[in-house]
Amino acid sequence: MSQHRFPARRFSRSETARAETFSDGIFAIAVTILVLGLTAPAHRPGRLAHALESQWPAYVGYFASFSYVAVIWLNHHQAFVRIRSMDRGLHAANFFVLFTTAALAFPTGVVADALRSDVSGADARVAVVLYASLASVMCLSWLVLYHHLGRHPELMDPEVEPAYVPHGRLRSWAGALAYAVAGVLGCLISPLIALGVFIVLPAFYFVSSEGLPAGRGPAGDTGA
Amino acid sequence: MSQHRFPARRFSRSETARAETFSDGIFAIAVTILVLGLTAPAHRPGRLAHALESQWPAYVGYFASFSYVAVIWLNHHQAFVRIRSMDRGLHAANFFVLFTTAALAFPTGVVADALRSDVSGADARVAVVLYASLASVMCLSWLVLYHHLGRHPELMDPEVEPAYVPHGRLRSWAGALAYAVAGVLGCLISPLIALGVFIVLPAFYFVSSEGLPAGRGPAGDTGA
Amino acid sequence: MSQHRFPARRFSRSETARAETFSDGIFAIAVTILVLGLTAPAHRPGRLAHALESQWPAYVGYFASFSYVAVIWLNHHQAFVRIRSMDRGLHAANFFVLFTTAALAFPTGVVADALRSDVSGADARVAVVLYASLASVMCLSWLVLYHHLGRHPELMDPEVEPAYVPHGRLRSWAGALAYAVAGVLGCLISPLIALGVFIVLPAFYFVSSEGLPAGRGPAGDTGA
Amino acid sequence: MSQHRFPARRFSRSETARAETFSDGIFAIAVTILVLGLTAPAHRPGRLAHALESQWPAYVGYFASFSYVAVIWLNHHQAFVRIRSMDRGLHAANFFVLFTTAALAFPTGVVADALRSDVSGADARVAVVLYASLASVMCLSWLVLYHHLGRHPELMDPEVEPAYVPHGRLRSWAGALAYAVAGVLGCLISPLIALGVFIVLPAFYFVSSEGLPAGRGPAGDTGA
Repeated sequence: MSQHRFPARRFSRSETARAETFSDGIFAIAVTILVLGLTAPAHRPGRLAHALESQWPAYVGYFASFSYVAVIWLNHHQAFVRIRSMDRGLHAANFFVLFTTAALAFPTGVVADALRSDVSGADARVAVVLYASLASVMCLSWLVLYHHLGRHPELMDPEVEPAYVPHGRLRSWAGALAYAVAGVLGCLISPLIALGVFIVLPAFYFVSSEGLPAGRGPAGDTGA
Repeated sequence: MSQHRFPARRFSRSETARAETFSDGIFAIAVTILVLGLTAPAHRPGRLAHALESQWPAYVGYFASFSYVAVIWLNHHQAFVRIRSMDRGLHAANFFVLFTTAALAFPTGVVADALRSDVSGADARVAVVLYASLASVMCLSWLVLYHHLGRHPELMDPEVEPAYVPHGRLRSWAGALAYAVAGVLGCLISPLIALGVFIVLPAFYFVSSEGLPAGRGPAGDTGA
Repeated sequence: MSQHRFPARRFSRSETARAETFSDGIFAIAVTILVLGLTAPAHRPGRLAHALESQWPAYVGYFASFSYVAVIWLNHHQAFVRIRSMDRGLHAANFFVLFTTAALAFPTGVVADALRSDVSGADARVAVVLYASLASVMCLSWLVLYHHLGRHPELMDPEVEPAYVPHGRLRSWAGALAYAVAGVLGCLISPLIALGVFIVLPAFYFVSSEGLPAGRGPAGDTGA
Repeated sequence: MSQHRFPARRFSRSETARAETFSDGIFAIAVTILVLGLTAPAHRPGRLAHALESQWPAYVGYFASFSYVAVIWLNHHQAFVRIRSMDRGLHAANFFVLFTTAALAFPTGVVADALRSDVSGADARVAVVLYASLASVMCLSWLVLYHHLGRHPELMDPEVEPAYVPHGRLRSWAGALAYAVAGVLGCLISPLIALGVFIVLPAFYFVSSEGLPAGRGPAGDTGA
């Protein structure tokens, strides 16, 4: 288009830094505004304690979604430590991740609302299916991101461990499946089962994740 | 005014960095709080699924606005990679961009609300005109920014490609016009047409944009 | 307390950077969540356009507060370019600035609400006095900050222009006074006068401010 | 797992930076969205001034929580200046700190709501116990963080003053106890006592904290 192109090196470096800043901002906001779903419950005089207790599904949902976004952030951080430049496809995949993560507050509120009314009614089943669906799509957005990295290894640091992308894909598939199963169980058997899975999954991913800072491989190295 | 002036070099450098941080923060927040417009719908017992379905305009609006802000952020990022110092006029233009972008949550909410009640009524027409107007003004704010850069090339890196500013201007005019046409069609024919344009435009800009990282020019360079 | 103290140099440098990040975050959030005060107005079918028009005080308040926070951010940026380390007093002054700025959304909402009901009634007068009071206290928080810098010049870069702190003090006093006068006029004569001043003052400060990047002193230098 | 591991040095450094950015973002958002709990009160025409006065507990709660989060941020900043790499346990402890801090907006709103209705009723007592409980757990989350640092000194800069971790532990225990006592007094005697403690404690910690930038030890050093 023009002969005087902007130097590639500086562009891509700066770009990664700003994509990280932007993403970190969205994760931080997404995780923090979840608290806006916790409000002082309407109650008759002298019945505040009871009203606070009866909205326990809101607390559970808050904890589940907070944990999920926090683990997603850690995942994102691990990915971008390895990424050294971004192309349009990676921007698109990253937007997909951010879009689904930012949207999590919506099903969280729906679950809190539905289970407060009736913990095992038809609406509660619909609500956990909605949550499970978005949580599952969140995993699929990571699959897209890993897929793109796998096809464009030049976007990553050359020293990245070869197992990084396959592991990421595997974990994404596993997560998508686990949330889908939780949704089915929540719909067919009991919404409380789904709620339990929503709490356990992020903790499981946090604890079991390989490649985390303190994750010691067979060789005992601590770097990744 | 005084003989001991603060050194210009450090000032302008730091300034650009903080303007980027501040702008990134606003974009990240603007895009994330859009989810607050998605709430658990009021519904009769057992009718949650139906109530969730009937607020589909809210989901469409959420997606359209999320995409728009994400693309705006990418645009902003591309601009500030090229900017090396800021004067007051550039700060003013940047504030104008931020102001209109931050305000997008308002017409998004109005569209969601109006189309939920009646997808083709008079209120829906008013709502899409409001959205189209602000979206169009957002494009004009970019026109102001490019215009200022065009008149003050010393604010940019000397190696910036000559076509950068004219391209930016052209895309801004095209965007302003496209949103205006969408508003007119939405008002005269059907609000759904406008809604369709609101979804398509950001995707079109994302895909078609030249100067994006992976945008390969005739020479096959990947730098810009 | 201990003989092995943490090295001062690294501490203070890092500290300034994080105080800037934290402050920038608060300014960005404070300015962006103002939009949450703009909501789809309740209206009868077919009366959306009218309802949108009748909440014009909300738009004016949004614009006034957005501009004010943006100018405050610019001010803060100019201050922290000159600050090279922070002591506890400066942290306290900075918190005071952040506290009052973050709180501005509250009187903005009260003004929007009161003027929508009755643009010149008793409630509107109360509302503009509330806004003017907080806006005035915001200026006083800057006075505290400049005062602290004046008494602890070792916290600033040695090359800072000598007029910086006295100018800042003068502008803070002027702002505090101007908002106070606006509140008195809004209470005694008409809330609309106050509203006009709320819009004009940030613009005036933005345009008239010396020490801004492009502000050319008599010597024509552009550094500060 | 693989022979080509990602270099440890770069990973941990980058990781600390992003954990700081993410945490700073959460603190900034948590402290800023507190203002959303301050809304234009419902009132009869001409009674706005009275309505604004009668929601004074909301202002007090806002001030108490803003101060608390600001002090927590300062604490966090002091900790991360000393931390040079993160393992999974430190990430978990940090998430615990962020989780409790982000949740503070909830009891703040409950306190504001309950005390507005009846400043010394049963609901007000429940509300201050809720606030005191979370505020106390916030201190315990810091205890976990200091405990982890104490057991993994290799995560910190080798030059960190030996008293840093023991001091942090002591302050955490003291804070947890003080908030617990405030809750008990607020429940048994008067919610206003608890409210007073909620305001005083952050100020006390800010003023009395050792290790703050300007905190001069016996030797008069200013580094920590």
